[in-house]
Amino acid sequence: MDLLDTVAVSVIPGISRTRAAAAFNRFRTLPLEPLALETVIAGCGHDGDAESLAARARAEAARLVAAAETEDVQPVVLNDPDYPPLLREIGDPPPVLWVRGARSALTRPAVAVVGSRTASAYAVEVATRLGRELAERGLVVVSGLARGADSAAHRGCLSVSGCTIGVLGSGVDVIYPPEHRELAVTLCKDGALISELGPGAPPRPEHFPLRNRLISGISLAVVVVEAAEKSGSLITARYALEHGRDVCAVPGSVLGGRNRGSHALLKDGAKVVESADDILEELGWPAARLACEISSNSLKSDELLAKLTPGEAYGLDELSATVGLAGATLLARLTDWELSSQLVKHRSLWQRRS
Amino acid sequence: MDLLDTVAVSVIPGISRTRAAAAFNRFRTLPLEPLALETVIAGCGHDGDAESLAARARAEAARLVAAAETEDVQPVVLNDPDYPPLLREIGDPPPVLWVRGARSALTRPAVAVVGSRTASAYAVEVATRLGRELAERGLVVVSGLARGADSAAHRGCLSVSGCTIGVLGSGVDVIYPPEHRELAVTLCKDGALISELGPGAPPRPEHFPLRNRLISGISLAVVVVEAAEKSGSLITARYALEHGRDVCAVPGSVLGGRNRGSHALLKDGAKVVESADDILEELGWPAARLACEISSNSLKSDELLAKLTPGEAYGLDELSATVGLAGATLLARLTDWELSSQLVKHRSLWQRRS
Repeated sequence: MDLLDTVAVSVIPGISRTRAAAAFNRFRTLPLEPLALETVIAGCGHDGDAESLAARARAEAARLVAAAETEDVQPVVLNDPDYPPLLREIGDPPPVLWVRGARSALTRPAVAVVGSRTASAYAVEVATRLGRELAERGLVVVSGLARGADSAAHRGCLSVSGCTIGVLGSGVDVIYPPEHRELAVTLCKDGALISELGPGAPPRPEHFPLRNRLISGISLAVVVVEAAEKSGSLITARYALEHGRDVCAVPGSVLGGRNRGSHALLKDGAKVVESADDILEELGWPAARLACEISSNSLKSDELLAKLTPGEAYGLDELSATVGLAGATLLARLTDWELSSQLVKHRSLWQRRS
Repeated sequence: MDLLDTVAVSVIPGISRTRAAAAFNRFRTLPLEPLALETVIAGCGHDGDAESLAARARAEAARLVAAAETEDVQPVVLNDPDYPPLLREIGDPPPVLWVRGARSALTRPAVAVVGSRTASAYAVEVATRLGRELAERGLVVVSGLARGADSAAHRGCLSVSGCTIGVLGSGVDVIYPPEHRELAVTLCKDGALISELGPGAPPRPEHFPLRNRLISGISLAVVVVEAAEKSGSLITARYALEHGRDVCAVPGSVLGGRNRGSHALLKDGAKVVESADDILEELGWPAARLACEISSNSLKSDELLAKLTPGEAYGLDELSATVGLAGATLLARLTDWELSSQLVKHRSLWQRRS
């Protein structure tokens, strides 16, 4: 199916995005090529005239694709190599993701950190720290660009030049809340903003549960920081369970109810997270390695890796001098190389495999 | 074995209390009556002359029993009906418990609340609340009379006229820390101070792990409030696992390490506790009922129960007027009656079984 028809699947009048996505996902694996938009519409069990619905959806799709070009927004369709591999595995993956920033970020191993919009100082501190620690370990930090814990996680990641993805409940050219516009721009340098809503879509309350499904969908694990009893983060956690992802929660005060949702998750068996290492332990490196596949990032960094003599062991200072990177950036790169089995670490020495 | 010899088991020169207790516990269930002190000494595998050791132990026992009489301290031996039933089930129950206060408290269902001596304001608030809530639900609150979380739990319990037991790492006539002397006196009105150390024993560091074993031993569950990585509360929790008791921990801040021990317990499967109801849920009333056996307290209160007509349903106000009790005292009594299946609660009505 071509780009326009694929986009059209997500804007069929009168059919919900997730229903159309699920139908598309069912059909795309069948030997029905070329899959027609009309088939998907019929597969949704809609009463309307498939042909006229398809025409209207195509017109809207054309409008969105044109708008995306103007706004420097890239549509990444389900069979694009840059489409997040884990998201492809959920039951209703969006046929198209609209992306602003570095689309290469989408295929790297990622962990979501989500939490209260009205976060306490404690939650902001913890989310910031987790964002930073995950980035230092080479993981992409996923969150919702919301006020409070979400933006703290993005910022913590950016503080060590990490790669972070903001998943929006609006078009990626519509930044909500508006005070996060600068954060959005910074984030797009190495990371990305993504949405299944086309350019110009406003942030509507009903968009956020959909958005939460994507946060879980592209992540290996979801970490909840300070969720009260009816927090949106619990929706994300429920999706994580549904998607078979690890659910983690940060403990906090039992007084005042701010953490009642997080603690309910812990009671139900979520992993207790005090620091990023707890998350890595839960994931296990092998799992992360599988999920990693070939990250475009590690391909890019091959010329740096080429500077290391195969079989030789390097100390951290030597490595830093040889590849010309330092601190968190170097560590993130080392993690990439370790994940792709190009580098082995023995105690504090790194050795390039031959 | 008579009182003097039973006490003597715990003061055999050169043999540790727990070793002697374990040997005594092994022999007491065998058909060896009358069990001789010398047999226990031999059973400990001690090289010395059993007869001379027994003579010395008996002399010390006589001194302790005399001192106890002077100090109004009661020795409660292992086969005394007032000996804590759950403590009898551990591998090395003390042959004698020295008790100050209401010995009837020892046979009631109890939950331990233990935590940091240098407790944060948060931990003090939580321990106080748990002590109060457990008392309101008719449970005895067990702790170590220490600074910080322990004394907060005792005080929370006392604030609603609950029954609380302080387990000491010294003789029950030696209050440590000294600023808890008034607390100790208050606590002894309806509750008790207990120790396996005879009157006059000073608080020595090596006594406290022993003491922690008793805290767990007499309790249905151990709740840890704010334990750092090397907290003594973790020793109590380890005993609780060994004794097959429920281990619970209160979550808290992941920053600064104050809760690292508590969170390690949660990671290992301890129950997350936000309030007393989480503990009750973990225990399940049926389990508590089994453990309750025939509490001397419920026997004593039979004359109050007799004031209720069998089969008739009473509202709380009516009940209060009829039995002449109110508030937490009434609720504790109702719980006793419910536990011993003498009273049934339907919604907000209580009915005496016929």
